[in-house]
Amino acid sequence: MPICPVCEITSSSYESLSDHFSQQAKNSDVGHIMWLNRNVTKDRGAEPRLPKLLAGFLDAGDLGLRRWIKLRFIERFFGERPHPFVLALQHPTKAVLLGYVLEHQHFLRQWVRSLSWVLAKTDSSEATKEELDNITTEFYGFGDDKPSHYELLIRMGESQGMKREDILATPPLPATASAIATWQEIGQERHWVETMAAMHSLELIANRKVKEDGAKLTYFDPSILKESEVTEATKAFLWEGYEADVEHSEIPLEMVERFAGQLGIVERVQVTFLKSMEAFDSYLMARLERAMTIDPKLVSYVSGSLPA
Amino acid sequence: MPICPVCEITSSSYESLSDHFSQQAKNSDVGHIMWLNRNVTKDRGAEPRLPKLLAGFLDAGDLGLRRWIKLRFIERFFGERPHPFVLALQHPTKAVLLGYVLEHQHFLRQWVRSLSWVLAKTDSSEATKEELDNITTEFYGFGDDKPSHYELLIRMGESQGMKREDILATPPLPATASAIATWQEIGQERHWVETMAAMHSLELIANRKVKEDGAKLTYFDPSILKESEVTEATKAFLWEGYEADVEHSEIPLEMVERFAGQLGIVERVQVTFLKSMEAFDSYLMARLERAMTIDPKLVSYVSGSLPA
Repeated sequence: MPICPVCEITSSSYESLSDHFSQQAKNSDVGHIMWLNRNVTKDRGAEPRLPKLLAGFLDAGDLGLRRWIKLRFIERFFGERPHPFVLALQHPTKAVLLGYVLEHQHFLRQWVRSLSWVLAKTDSSEATKEELDNITTEFYGFGDDKPSHYELLIRMGESQGMKREDILATPPLPATASAIATWQEIGQERHWVETMAAMHSLELIANRKVKEDGAKLTYFDPSILKESEVTEATKAFLWEGYEADVEHSEIPLEMVERFAGQLGIVERVQVTFLKSMEAFDSYLMARLERAMTIDPKLVSYVSGSLPA
Repeated sequence: MPICPVCEITSSSYESLSDHFSQQAKNSDVGHIMWLNRNVTKDRGAEPRLPKLLAGFLDAGDLGLRRWIKLRFIERFFGERPHPFVLALQHPTKAVLLGYVLEHQHFLRQWVRSLSWVLAKTDSSEATKEELDNITTEFYGFGDDKPSHYELLIRMGESQGMKREDILATPPLPATASAIATWQEIGQERHWVETMAAMHSLELIANRKVKEDGAKLTYFDPSILKESEVTEATKAFLWEGYEADVEHSEIPLEMVERFAGQLGIVERVQVTFLKSMEAFDSYLMARLERAMTIDPKLVSYVSGSLPA
């Protein structure tokens, strides 16, 4: 049965969910109206078609959960109107890369916490193995030969002329802090399968195979890995994600689909994924916001999303 | 202010805690009576001295939290009446080692979960580093060159003639399952500093330096590491703990003392440690219980603790 992605009440059908949204819109509830505008339709005359539109967006039945997550994610970040940070990262400037580093260090520290909620709550040795594997690569590393993703990130920042201690001493922007609070709450309050979905879906961002599923572009123009357009440390960081995130998003999402089906919590997983995707969208904007404090001209990337 | 280790109510003084125990004893409350017998005194005429005896056991003021934990742990497992499993492990037979392996595989799986509660809840990067370090050594390993403690345990079991799949398919005895449930509840319900104390104090079991703090014996007779009395795989497993657990218990317990002091939760940490130590005592008995299903003669190790 469909669950409202805004207030999480369960409806008996898409007709009834549609009635719920109409009622909330009549009450001028900002959360529900914004969600409809952003995900389903901005057309106020669409009310008669709303049950069908909602089902079109939320129903994962035919696609399967993994593919549904992928498609929703791709639409949001790599679709007709790609995310501004993704546009800025195609051929990134120094300011864009520093915006990335300064905010992402906080994301990666939360990453450990989020995956640890899964490890703390799960009884599946398959999930334990997967999450330990991921945490080790992302945060712990394997000595000097294979530094962690976190260490590669800091080195990318240094290669843009910023000192390590200055990077580490920079607190997150409020939008980053707020997204992090959302992920921490998801880990704390929700089922570990929901947390797996919330986090590993985000690794789709660097998955180089998204074009096979309809993406208009990838996270960055892969040609930058070949030329001398960016520093070697930048290539090392981006390359890691480019390689690892295919596996890091595909395998756990397959598990999520399987476990969610067995436990009968597919709809709950969907709602949690949507919540996490929303937080991730704001968080990517925070990277650009940080970059704009270094180079105000970057505002051109967001002007398209501002009211005309 | 002292906290009752049984029902966790806070008292204003040791006099008032003593009154609480007397009242509970009058009500024939088994939990409180057993705790007193086990930790403070079996002498029913000791009531007038009870405030002093309780303070002697619980007050960590002069010792400092870390040393208090160490001394209480040593008294319990390495004192005048050492724990029966420790006696059996001095020169272990095949049955004792198999009892160890069959129950401890479940302990180590819980170990990951318990440390993950700390990782999920902490905001200290120092604690994060320490726990990741520990999880990696205990459970994840570093490829073929440096297998995890978990893998070394299974190999020790194989070296005693049991098949890997048979080891892995053996469920825990009820006493082990119950101890594991206690640790999972501690991680879930309590402050991460309490969970750190609950878990890392247990690593004192293999700390080879306990004799410096008054232990009558160590976990096993270290001479068995030199001779051919036990298999090479057994030496490899025991050696790992012998080496690692000095560091693994000292460093986190220093952190626990520091954080607990800063947060003003020293008494809560003490109570949680005592709860965990109690669970560990039963769990070590479960290893011996398992060993006795293989070799009933081992009952001689526990007969001392049975009523005469």
